[in-house]
Amino acid sequence: MGSSFGIVFKVHTWGESHGRAVGCVVDSPPAGLKLNEEDIQKELDRRKPGGKLASKRKESDKVEILSGIFEGLTTGTPISMLVWNRDARPEAYEPIKNLIRPGHADYTYLAKFGFRDWRGGGRASARETVARVAAGAIAKKLLSEFGVGIYGYTKEIAGIRCEVSGEIEEIFKRAEKNSVRCPDEEKAVLMEEKIIEAMKSGDSVGGVVEVVAKNVPAGIGEPVFDKLDARLAYAVMSIPAVKGVEIGSGFSCSKMRGSEHNDAVILKDGKIRFETNNAGGILGGISCGEDIVIRAAIKPTPSISIPQKTVNVETMEETEIVVKGRHDPCIVPRAVPVVEAMVAITIADLMMLQGIIPRSLIKKH
Amino acid sequence: MGSSFGIVFKVHTWGESHGRAVGCVVDSPPAGLKLNEEDIQKELDRRKPGGKLASKRKESDKVEILSGIFEGLTTGTPISMLVWNRDARPEAYEPIKNLIRPGHADYTYLAKFGFRDWRGGGRASARETVARVAAGAIAKKLLSEFGVGIYGYTKEIAGIRCEVSGEIEEIFKRAEKNSVRCPDEEKAVLMEEKIIEAMKSGDSVGGVVEVVAKNVPAGIGEPVFDKLDARLAYAVMSIPAVKGVEIGSGFSCSKMRGSEHNDAVILKDGKIRFETNNAGGILGGISCGEDIVIRAAIKPTPSISIPQKTVNVETMEETEIVVKGRHDPCIVPRAVPVVEAMVAITIADLMMLQGIIPRSLIKKH
Amino acid sequence: MGSSFGIVFKVHTWGESHGRAVGCVVDSPPAGLKLNEEDIQKELDRRKPGGKLASKRKESDKVEILSGIFEGLTTGTPISMLVWNRDARPEAYEPIKNLIRPGHADYTYLAKFGFRDWRGGGRASARETVARVAAGAIAKKLLSEFGVGIYGYTKEIAGIRCEVSGEIEEIFKRAEKNSVRCPDEEKAVLMEEKIIEAMKSGDSVGGVVEVVAKNVPAGIGEPVFDKLDARLAYAVMSIPAVKGVEIGSGFSCSKMRGSEHNDAVILKDGKIRFETNNAGGILGGISCGEDIVIRAAIKPTPSISIPQKTVNVETMEETEIVVKGRHDPCIVPRAVPVVEAMVAITIADLMMLQGIIPRSLIKKH
Amino acid sequence: MGSSFGIVFKVHTWGESHGRAVGCVVDSPPAGLKLNEEDIQKELDRRKPGGKLASKRKESDKVEILSGIFEGLTTGTPISMLVWNRDARPEAYEPIKNLIRPGHADYTYLAKFGFRDWRGGGRASARETVARVAAGAIAKKLLSEFGVGIYGYTKEIAGIRCEVSGEIEEIFKRAEKNSVRCPDEEKAVLMEEKIIEAMKSGDSVGGVVEVVAKNVPAGIGEPVFDKLDARLAYAVMSIPAVKGVEIGSGFSCSKMRGSEHNDAVILKDGKIRFETNNAGGILGGISCGEDIVIRAAIKPTPSISIPQKTVNVETMEETEIVVKGRHDPCIVPRAVPVVEAMVAITIADLMMLQGIIPRSLIKKH
Repeated sequence: MGSSFGIVFKVHTWGESHGRAVGCVVDSPPAGLKLNEEDIQKELDRRKPGGKLASKRKESDKVEILSGIFEGLTTGTPISMLVWNRDARPEAYEPIKNLIRPGHADYTYLAKFGFRDWRGGGRASARETVARVAAGAIAKKLLSEFGVGIYGYTKEIAGIRCEVSGEIEEIFKRAEKNSVRCPDEEKAVLMEEKIIEAMKSGDSVGGVVEVVAKNVPAGIGEPVFDKLDARLAYAVMSIPAVKGVEIGSGFSCSKMRGSEHNDAVILKDGKIRFETNNAGGILGGISCGEDIVIRAAIKPTPSISIPQKTVNVETMEETEIVVKGRHDPCIVPRAVPVVEAMVAITIADLMMLQGIIPRSLIKKH
Repeated sequence: MGSSFGIVFKVHTWGESHGRAVGCVVDSPPAGLKLNEEDIQKELDRRKPGGKLASKRKESDKVEILSGIFEGLTTGTPISMLVWNRDARPEAYEPIKNLIRPGHADYTYLAKFGFRDWRGGGRASARETVARVAAGAIAKKLLSEFGVGIYGYTKEIAGIRCEVSGEIEEIFKRAEKNSVRCPDEEKAVLMEEKIIEAMKSGDSVGGVVEVVAKNVPAGIGEPVFDKLDARLAYAVMSIPAVKGVEIGSGFSCSKMRGSEHNDAVILKDGKIRFETNNAGGILGGISCGEDIVIRAAIKPTPSISIPQKTVNVETMEETEIVVKGRHDPCIVPRAVPVVEAMVAITIADLMMLQGIIPRSLIKKH
Repeated sequence: MGSSFGIVFKVHTWGESHGRAVGCVVDSPPAGLKLNEEDIQKELDRRKPGGKLASKRKESDKVEILSGIFEGLTTGTPISMLVWNRDARPEAYEPIKNLIRPGHADYTYLAKFGFRDWRGGGRASARETVARVAAGAIAKKLLSEFGVGIYGYTKEIAGIRCEVSGEIEEIFKRAEKNSVRCPDEEKAVLMEEKIIEAMKSGDSVGGVVEVVAKNVPAGIGEPVFDKLDARLAYAVMSIPAVKGVEIGSGFSCSKMRGSEHNDAVILKDGKIRFETNNAGGILGGISCGEDIVIRAAIKPTPSISIPQKTVNVETMEETEIVVKGRHDPCIVPRAVPVVEAMVAITIADLMMLQGIIPRSLIKKH
Repeated sequence: MGSSFGIVFKVHTWGESHGRAVGCVVDSPPAGLKLNEEDIQKELDRRKPGGKLASKRKESDKVEILSGIFEGLTTGTPISMLVWNRDARPEAYEPIKNLIRPGHADYTYLAKFGFRDWRGGGRASARETVARVAAGAIAKKLLSEFGVGIYGYTKEIAGIRCEVSGEIEEIFKRAEKNSVRCPDEEKAVLMEEKIIEAMKSGDSVGGVVEVVAKNVPAGIGEPVFDKLDARLAYAVMSIPAVKGVEIGSGFSCSKMRGSEHNDAVILKDGKIRFETNNAGGILGGISCGEDIVIRAAIKPTPSISIPQKTVNVETMEETEIVVKGRHDPCIVPRAVPVVEAMVAITIADLMMLQGIIPRSLIKKH
């Protein structure tokens, strides 16, 4: 257990960094959704390694859909997808197989399971997020049929923070244009400099991803535990490297007064809306019709080539480790589609549970 | 659905602010745990309203255990507990029953369910956390049998932040001594001033709660979705008023370098340990044997007596609302035992799932 | 865990035979269902002990609803219900507390939990089914709003089997009129004779309960594991004393040919229907629009006053036991409302999951 | 949802009869179990089509393990397996794609999803059980490490019923030797005759499968809903073509007296055991240490070449259908390994939940 997420739109992932493949089963979007491999591929391509700031691992990450589609439509039964690992190089990890890499899950998998797949972190590798992005692509396609858009970008890298305003679609487009996925071009340049600087010294940097879900209808979320914000926190905190999650005002709420934090209730086109959005679109764990706004803190990549203190678990002696290889000096830009995916999965799940997304998109017989 | 939490140590809560009672079913701690109402009561007393900084609602919050105990021991079957609502005053809400209180769940419950129990927020009230604290008391008692301690305190109120150091038991004891539950006495005075200041102007303030779980064994947590940090974020974000959750370094990780953030691996008494704890005790979603450290951002109480813009849902006209009544100007101190409870429930659940806590504490027949 | 049933219409039960109370939490029917204690009470009264063929335990079984109702309507949040145990007499069990009662769960609870609540079977008692019937009453009320009726009766007792035909409502009414709940009056007399005969010799008899669900819409059930028949089997087999479950033709299918067993597909009022109903209303795990027909085999009451071989777990010596006290010589008639309850819960759950029963019965704001 | 089974040993299946492949994810057996493709293949080979009494579809059913194994041992993370469909011939179904095949799920899938994959039943095909058998093979391998054996055979076909006695391993071996999987050779001949007779007239026959689980330790099963018998009924009733499930005495209990049905409690080698086994190894939903005995009624194959009444859903006119093609005249023998698989999965799941099977078979670091 542990590799499943979702209540009615369920995602099950599998696979290791240097195993044969990674994949997932999505059980299930409603019947009648148009879906093909291209819908999935375009999201995987956003996550794919490559570029001057990313890992040199060469993976085409071509997705194959194995079930659940008939005549171009989802059938309402499980969709199985896989991506073959083409550029796995487990041998690169052989020299350090007995060394615990700081900041990684090496020791904890050992403590839990008694031994571990040391090939690039095995199941604990960020490569596992390929499956999340594939599942998320289905959720995004489904949400788009109901007018809901999921937009992510880099909010902060290495202390450089950008402020955003304007139409979320435009913000998103701008962000997609640069290598750090930051919607503010000037800040993007500064972020890139920080990354290159860290990379040169064999080090890495962290940041913050922000995701906005637009047009989520009011009424989504299941109090008191399966609240929309609780499910989002669960989903996003499960992503490798995430150390914090916040909704709307987030941690800044601790410095605000009630009169400042409360979003005034107003009428707009005869409908109840809110003047501000400190709530991040969620009140009492249920969506209120405003944009859902969520941020995730991403830690600096633990794989660095600077020597670090560690322990050899074979000899049980203290020693040093230098993690060589193909690692991103900053995973924030590649984390953006992963956070989007988890947000999309969570919202699709709760919209189905609420009955806003029906079990079939086809007029019944 | 929605009112259950836990995989094998399951908690189901029920009840409304101004209904007959609030309660929970805990299904189930292992058989053979010594447990009585006093174990529960002492935690409820920590959460209870009262004191100069808290709501004037008079609730003795006496818990009754209705099942699952035989001859002073848990039987391994569900424990049902309830607390009667003694000082419910639904009539106080009658005048504003058609007004959407800003910052509350009034509109979202209406949007989801088509109508709402307007008596003090109904199910959305923080009174629901009585049940969480009762369930958490069982989890804490159980964890204590396995050497695990759960310690919470106020980290920040209204921008006043305290730093803590030393033995966690001592920090906890100091915090319990003052009305704001802050372990730093000087900061506690400042926090109290801020609260009184806000109260006087009919306003409210927010803050941050920190909880430390000590002696959690390595190996707890179920990758890749039911990770310990993901489950903790899920649990804690489900608490009313929480807008953010972070583990270890949390959002500050975004400004750190990998060489700074990684916790060096060392040997201590022949065992693998970590020199620092930016990880907050969790790597790859699994506990590493260091203290689990989690923080929750608590928004300022939405009930304030300053006039606010709102809408009357009966007339569908914009108007103003003044929320009178018995509200805490700052709920951070009373949120401390609630966050502790959710952390305890989460850890007990995952320790049972890992088999570290067995199904019976009694030597089998 | 273990005391919960349902995917979205969840039922959590608690309580022991001779503890303070038994009860349940139902999380949750849709908002806007008219519901009061009388709706529950009338079903509990059908299950209640009493009459010449039943246990002499005097329980009024008065239900109290503690949450989830506002102004006579369900709010969409958990409904907590309890029934106080009034005539508990744990002392009656003291003399046999170390003896394993054959046919009961005494030994298995001991093996699982290391000790056991020996007061009348504790959690393993059929008294637990009070909670099922209370929850089932909500499910039945909800289903009736959607035209679905749940009708149970005794099919067989002690080898006396009745055949039924005609309108199910009439069959049901006839069955409710006699003490064995058999729709065939002549067979009812024979069944009663068999029960009295067994009772006189300190023995007990078993039988078969049949439940028909009428007007269940086509399309209910979630292949390939949460099929309607699989969920029904799960639900009904979880009832104490049930040793077998069958749908439609059931075990008799093993003697039929395909040409005989297949239900011909026909048109009726322009709609697809079936000429016969060997399928029992379910094909491929999904309802087909015909009556759902399910039968449960009920074993003879294990509590008998004839001496039986057993073991004293204190001395670990073989000995004899005579189970005195207040037991039904045949629990089949009282099992009828329990099987109905589990069938109703299962169908309500899957209808909600399919979106046929919405989350709110009230026109949304 | 719907395609997952299990609480902690979870199985997720996917795939259609004439899609690209069928497969499953098993999440997860404990770490450290020796496992290879041959362990899976030998069970798939038992289920494989072929032989004079079975479908002429030519499938080698070669399994591929894609994840979760490292150096020959399970890692404790999800095991993904697939079997490519080699002999899919969807075109064979084209002529009848608008006709509802009696006894099949054609109409119900249409009613539920609004359209259907008509290629050989799509997801509703018995081909889906390939995935169950693959998952069950892991469960069986795991159980065998703990001394638990799962043994299935044909109990009845077309009214010919065999009685079995002696060592279950021997019974099992005998059954595996003939084409109908019946442990009684003489009865096997009669069964085969019945099948051939039906086949010649284009018809089909049903039967009963019996599975015995040996050496299941006492204490398995989670009252009051996740009882061992309830979980077994759930698991087995979810298999295509199963119309009834019974445990131990099963439906025959309805004709027995309590004094006859109760299994006397005795001492054997100083341990509590039972003289008879009408309970089928389960009391109060918990295993008692005796053999678990379960039977499943299997309906006659619905695909028959005798003309049947049906409806054309395109024209909505009544018509006739003749189902040609590659079908088993009796699926009972091939159902045996499927029932075994579901029983094994259920028991492995509950043994893990009880902590009898630990999370790692490797001595911890």
